[in-house]
Amino acid sequence: MMEHNLFVLVDLFGTFAFAVSGAIAAEQRRLDLFGVVAISYLTACGGGVVRDLCLGSLPPVGISDWRYLAMSGMASAMAIWARPIIDHLKHPIVFFDSLGLGFFAVIGAHKALLLGHNIEVAIILGMVTAVGGGLARDVVLNRVPIILHKEIYALAALIGAAIQVLGQLMEWRAAVTPWFAVSICLAIRLLALRYSWSLPIVRRGDVAQ
Amino acid sequence: MMEHNLFVLVDLFGTFAFAVSGAIAAEQRRLDLFGVVAISYLTACGGGVVRDLCLGSLPPVGISDWRYLAMSGMASAMAIWARPIIDHLKHPIVFFDSLGLGFFAVIGAHKALLLGHNIEVAIILGMVTAVGGGLARDVVLNRVPIILHKEIYALAALIGAAIQVLGQLMEWRAAVTPWFAVSICLAIRLLALRYSWSLPIVRRGDVAQ
Amino acid sequence: MMEHNLFVLVDLFGTFAFAVSGAIAAEQRRLDLFGVVAISYLTACGGGVVRDLCLGSLPPVGISDWRYLAMSGMASAMAIWARPIIDHLKHPIVFFDSLGLGFFAVIGAHKALLLGHNIEVAIILGMVTAVGGGLARDVVLNRVPIILHKEIYALAALIGAAIQVLGQLMEWRAAVTPWFAVSICLAIRLLALRYSWSLPIVRRGDVAQ
Repeated sequence: MMEHNLFVLVDLFGTFAFAVSGAIAAEQRRLDLFGVVAISYLTACGGGVVRDLCLGSLPPVGISDWRYLAMSGMASAMAIWARPIIDHLKHPIVFFDSLGLGFFAVIGAHKALLLGHNIEVAIILGMVTAVGGGLARDVVLNRVPIILHKEIYALAALIGAAIQVLGQLMEWRAAVTPWFAVSICLAIRLLALRYSWSLPIVRRGDVAQ
Repeated sequence: MMEHNLFVLVDLFGTFAFAVSGAIAAEQRRLDLFGVVAISYLTACGGGVVRDLCLGSLPPVGISDWRYLAMSGMASAMAIWARPIIDHLKHPIVFFDSLGLGFFAVIGAHKALLLGHNIEVAIILGMVTAVGGGLARDVVLNRVPIILHKEIYALAALIGAAIQVLGQLMEWRAAVTPWFAVSICLAIRLLALRYSWSLPIVRRGDVAQ
Repeated sequence: MMEHNLFVLVDLFGTFAFAVSGAIAAEQRRLDLFGVVAISYLTACGGGVVRDLCLGSLPPVGISDWRYLAMSGMASAMAIWARPIIDHLKHPIVFFDSLGLGFFAVIGAHKALLLGHNIEVAIILGMVTAVGGGLARDVVLNRVPIILHKEIYALAALIGAAIQVLGQLMEWRAAVTPWFAVSICLAIRLLALRYSWSLPIVRRGDVAQ
């Protein structure tokens, strides 16, 4: 779909960034070594696993492809024993997390269309690929998912997936579409972080239920 | 299975009621606009998605059928900008939630039997279809699922699914069975609400584990 | 795979032990009768359901095989009305929980290899079969999963699954491999309990995220 080597490289960096965010969150909850690796892995591959379950593409690539596990192990090791490096990489990690968001959204949408599913399936599963891991991380760590009440995150993934779908339907050049979709997603996310863009929070309803 | 137009209409109302319950719960947790729609959608389609994953009927109808998303968008919009209408509809919404409970249970059980599965699968997946969305809503919002400790809810769905299965096995008239199953489920749930029927709560064990 | 009758018996005891742990956890959260049975059932069959979803072996055996449900009902009934018996069985239950851990890990890994999947899939899904139910129990009951921060648990399952995979690859005698794998897993878990072996807990990072 994209120039192959570059694609693999960016995918790895994105996966690594997701894995780091999982490892750090697990550490903050005082999980043990195993728990840190497990949450890191869940964050890195959770979205893709749900997507593949919904597409019937089994076993899920997050489980059968060793790279997700390897990235999780490396991210956990660095988060535990080389924390200064992680802190030093703080800005790159935010960058790659945002890049990974875009990539995962595009990959998810592309895979759904490839398997012959409709537009809605492609956009939703693109977004799920991108945000599912973070959602699973927060659910298992027992906190309300960050993506549902912080700076624009899932919406950026949704837009990235939608652009990819639009590009494939309109038959834009296949070498350009994914990069364009990833760029828009990345731009939205980075601008949201830079200027603290949030979607409005709905006033607390006073009707009990 | 049922007279088609009426069936679609009731299904839509049930989905809408589920979506409203999700949107209101998300609002109370101060999620942002995106979060409200996401939780509303999860509540409306979550049960059907799990059922379809277990049946291998992919992609799950909750993702491929635009109506679930449309109902969630509408329910969220009303919960946010037309709250008085929602409050005004409070009784109808409780009614349609209970009706949706019965319908989803019957639809789930019917689909499982149609695909050739056994009685246990049909009853369990019927119940899962009906209560899965509410369960997912509560898990993501980080609270102990209401359905596990409030007025009789999941049990009503279980009974509805069981009646549908019984009817199909006994070859009751196909035009009657689902309506009968839905009615019983609805009656149990409304009576449970009216008279605060709860299953006994088990005394707190004093054995730590 | 193993001598059949003995195998079924041990599998039943393991399932029962898992079901008991679910029922007790649900009781402590003051769920109602239905909630106790539901959590018990989820704990007993959750791991196998996730494994079967990932393997595309549908419907999941935890749903289609009545034994899981029967064990959950029995475990719940005993946890509620015969608590002294459960307390009396405390040591056997810990023993069978550890035995079940090993068995589930071996069964999961074996099933994955049987369906032609690679080593990573077999080891991960073996572990998931063993710990998935307990994880689901804790997520639904809204607590950070015990398996991620207590005595060595998931790691024992991982090792059991890995030994089973190794044995099948090296073509050890089929009558011996599973029992050896189960024994090692059981030994690790029981020793961990006896001597409070835990994996090191990572120091709380002071970097907010």
